[in-house]
Amino acid sequence: MRKEKVSSAVIRRLPRYYRHLSDLHLAGTERISSSALGKSMGLTASQIRQDLSCFGEFGQQGYGYNVDKLRGEISDILGMNRGHTAIILGAGNLGRALLENFHFERSGFQLTAAFDVDSAIVGRTLSGVPVYHARDLEEYLRAHPTGMGVLTVPRAAADATAGRLVRGGVKGIWNFTNIELSVAGSGVVVEDVHFADSLLSLSYMISEAL
Amino acid sequence: MRKEKVSSAVIRRLPRYYRHLSDLHLAGTERISSSALGKSMGLTASQIRQDLSCFGEFGQQGYGYNVDKLRGEISDILGMNRGHTAIILGAGNLGRALLENFHFERSGFQLTAAFDVDSAIVGRTLSGVPVYHARDLEEYLRAHPTGMGVLTVPRAAADATAGRLVRGGVKGIWNFTNIELSVAGSGVVVEDVHFADSLLSLSYMISEAL
Repeated sequence: MRKEKVSSAVIRRLPRYYRHLSDLHLAGTERISSSALGKSMGLTASQIRQDLSCFGEFGQQGYGYNVDKLRGEISDILGMNRGHTAIILGAGNLGRALLENFHFERSGFQLTAAFDVDSAIVGRTLSGVPVYHARDLEEYLRAHPTGMGVLTVPRAAADATAGRLVRGGVKGIWNFTNIELSVAGSGVVVEDVHFADSLLSLSYMISEAL
Repeated sequence: MRKEKVSSAVIRRLPRYYRHLSDLHLAGTERISSSALGKSMGLTASQIRQDLSCFGEFGQQGYGYNVDKLRGEISDILGMNRGHTAIILGAGNLGRALLENFHFERSGFQLTAAFDVDSAIVGRTLSGVPVYHARDLEEYLRAHPTGMGVLTVPRAAADATAGRLVRGGVKGIWNFTNIELSVAGSGVVVEDVHFADSLLSLSYMISEAL
């Protein structure tokens, strides 16, 4: 149970905590001190204690954190047990890479359908997920209210497709198009994936090392 | 010119500044105040001023920042003009999505080759980039010293391929495999792309909105 409201900075770090705790759990670790957890994550013990202070009941002086309990608590806060559904818009290379290789269910999402305009792929089933024609999106969303849309369409189609998702009632968009979507005021949340930001950080680190 | 060493937290934000300044530059904006830049980035004017204090000569009381100059300075610091070269390891869906759709050159990287084991693709040229057999990686790196490897191989091949890149002299690895690579002590920097972290943040935001 939460003791206090979790700050947004902590929220952005929670997925990393979840990932590290899952690795520890898989490795059979039952409990871990804040300093050991910090070391494995490149953080100080005091940063860890501060971040996780809202989960105080799982961290005790001289005991540390119960790995499985803390992982479960973080999972609850992240909404991983809410039964979110998701569809993919655009089954090109990136859409298919996600569809075939990314484990949506491990993040609590059930992937129910994909949409594309390519007749070579529409009507097929990829990794158990049916691919429908993009023109049938509205009809699908009426029949199957959906929590989240993965936007992997070409840039030129990004804003129009996002608008259709918003009107179709999705709650969130996972945006891979590198376009700033115009969904302000709709209440729909957008999580942008910017590959270039990540590559530029790497460019900096490589350049510093030269 | 830099006035002082740039902190690592600022470095992680520099790509976002670069992206926003590029958008402003494309839109024809010549100068911008710290409060306007902050507003477009969801930061306060004082955070902006603090972050960019090491670029003081471009920010002046009553003038703001010269968009193009600040963008150029950030580009230099990020190492975008160093002529980095890159190769892609694994030309499956994700590798091909990057190869065909991602503009490496806009981040200062020249993509020179891709490697795979699939005979259906080895020997072809995709978006101007030759695809070689993975067994020829060492020979290629000897003849063409390369700055960075994009790791999009299957998980089972991740660590072995990373080791070959390290021994082949790359300076950095852009890691899409979701494996924590064992390159400690090699001096090679690794930038991990964790799709699940991004999705879990979205899951949190969707769940809070419900």
